[in-house]
Amino acid sequence: MSETTGTTELRTPVLDPAAWTCPAPLRDQPRIVMGHGGGGALSAELVQHVFAPAFGGDVLAQLGDAAALSLGGVRMAFSTDSFVVRPLFFPGGSIGDLAVNGTVNDLAMSGARAAYLSCGFILEEGVEMETVARVAEAFGAAARTAGVEVATGDTKVVEAGHGDGIFINTAGIGLIPAGVDLRPQRVVPGDVVLVSGAIGVHGVAIMSVREGLEFGVEIESDCAALGGLVDAMLAVTPDLHVLRDPTRGGLAAALNEIAAASGTGVVIRERDVPVPPAVANACAVLGLDPMYVANEGKLVAFVPREHADAVLDAMRAHPLGTESTIIGEVVDAHPGMVVARTGLGGTRVVDLPIGEQLPRIC
Amino acid sequence: MSETTGTTELRTPVLDPAAWTCPAPLRDQPRIVMGHGGGGALSAELVQHVFAPAFGGDVLAQLGDAAALSLGGVRMAFSTDSFVVRPLFFPGGSIGDLAVNGTVNDLAMSGARAAYLSCGFILEEGVEMETVARVAEAFGAAARTAGVEVATGDTKVVEAGHGDGIFINTAGIGLIPAGVDLRPQRVVPGDVVLVSGAIGVHGVAIMSVREGLEFGVEIESDCAALGGLVDAMLAVTPDLHVLRDPTRGGLAAALNEIAAASGTGVVIRERDVPVPPAVANACAVLGLDPMYVANEGKLVAFVPREHADAVLDAMRAHPLGTESTIIGEVVDAHPGMVVARTGLGGTRVVDLPIGEQLPRIC
Repeated sequence: MSETTGTTELRTPVLDPAAWTCPAPLRDQPRIVMGHGGGGALSAELVQHVFAPAFGGDVLAQLGDAAALSLGGVRMAFSTDSFVVRPLFFPGGSIGDLAVNGTVNDLAMSGARAAYLSCGFILEEGVEMETVARVAEAFGAAARTAGVEVATGDTKVVEAGHGDGIFINTAGIGLIPAGVDLRPQRVVPGDVVLVSGAIGVHGVAIMSVREGLEFGVEIESDCAALGGLVDAMLAVTPDLHVLRDPTRGGLAAALNEIAAASGTGVVIRERDVPVPPAVANACAVLGLDPMYVANEGKLVAFVPREHADAVLDAMRAHPLGTESTIIGEVVDAHPGMVVARTGLGGTRVVDLPIGEQLPRIC
Repeated sequence: MSETTGTTELRTPVLDPAAWTCPAPLRDQPRIVMGHGGGGALSAELVQHVFAPAFGGDVLAQLGDAAALSLGGVRMAFSTDSFVVRPLFFPGGSIGDLAVNGTVNDLAMSGARAAYLSCGFILEEGVEMETVARVAEAFGAAARTAGVEVATGDTKVVEAGHGDGIFINTAGIGLIPAGVDLRPQRVVPGDVVLVSGAIGVHGVAIMSVREGLEFGVEIESDCAALGGLVDAMLAVTPDLHVLRDPTRGGLAAALNEIAAASGTGVVIRERDVPVPPAVANACAVLGLDPMYVANEGKLVAFVPREHADAVLDAMRAHPLGTESTIIGEVVDAHPGMVVARTGLGGTRVVDLPIGEQLPRIC
């Protein structure tokens, strides 16, 4: 499966489902490699073969971005993410913004409006107090914008050389509205696939500043809280089938996870996937496929066909969804597989990435 | 205040409250030092002068181990902690046990029985898969023992040299039973102060293995989940005033935080504080004061006098509280200050530690 890392080449379609196993079999990795944190097949293996058997439990087995659970008779979403992005500040945001929006968005993908956040800082001895303060201020401002309260926190310090400036973990909780049930298992053939705007922007913004590259125009991260956009979509109908924010592993990983979990096939029209010219140019220089590049302010939605046009209109009417568009549909054929129809009339398989193209982009 | 770090010497009492400011004024630290993660005055300053103003919000301002909040009309506790203990395995436990029990106990100190945990792993590239699996298994086993479900997780990987094997963050949620309202502000003069057993054990266990010291007998960490013990205490009366698990900064930090937040004075009888001989010997060798050494399976309780004997009986009847004892009381005098009556009939002030005696013990 060495051909599965990002590429913009056209490839011969491999449409035999028997040749496609997802999750990939456990590779005999004696040590952790960067790809275990990449949100692709190696990450999935680590969860499925190490963490899930050790932890047990029904809720974790759902393996969604957020857990849907019940506490005291109240239905809520609960999610966590750690953030290790490098550098700490980048065009369009910082680790503080990411740490808030990442968890707020994971909750939003369950239909939940984030109510409370926890934050755990792991600081490296010697990091400047001014840097910590700037990150904390960005975190607080992002929380206010998202309408979420920071309820509880913790700080640890590790010796110089045993951390990397600032790592942040956030966990969040929020109510899931009545009648909302967003999960891949609800996806059925005929569903329409929408994205809320241009893809690949966050990952390229990070790489451009990290590598000191110039692409003519500065590319800013799309980092944003999607709770309001999701509310606008649910106001059309609570009967959306699944939402996902395509972060690590990009749109390709999100679509593959949904295809695998739902047991359906996903077909997208490559030319309808919105990739800004600056991102396309940067990806060409860096050897990346925009389909695999992380986003931090976009969502992909699987919507029943009868609601698709109204949901699209609602998305376009929201400031974070003005460039929303339909990119594909769900089919009976090739269950568990994502296929792209190319601009030249061919098809290619859009695989789950193995590891990560871009380490530490969130 | 340089004399405030741990010492077993008798000191001249300083009983003028005006001379005692808690929290300490912001020190003009241009960079993060290890003490900012130590749970003492430097940690408090970082929260109060950097994080709290940046984050805002009413819940965080309570500054308890867990936030008590309301979601969908249900009263619950929400807490988070990151764990960076070194080494990953130690006598009596591992980072996996600590990560579960630390957050379960923070919830228990609100009277909440932990229901769901999140876990975020930050792995260093190159750490052995076998080590990750052993930690995950310890984590899962501890969760089952504590009766808490692991609901959601996340894994990130950082390059070799930018982490330290395994860091874990956990967040937890649990219901607070009706009628339970545990917070320092409820403490009043006359309250009785109890501890659930021997103090100083966890910190000494970590230091002994880290430094390769032998103290005649192997000292095992007391790491344990306290939800069942708290349930047994609340079964006597829901009207306990405050509970705290004395982790970083030890019993001294816990008592100081409660004295400061309640505006009352705390008097303890030094000879009644249970310190096992092995811990006392180790502390003498290491130059530590057991009052400042971390515990991971003990609690301190402030209880109305009329309930103290019955609560003590209930604690002693529980496997994790057989050595429970009364160590002191709350007084009108010296508000915000903790004073120890020594075995020799004198008194000494038990200060809030500035930084930490023992880095990375949790």
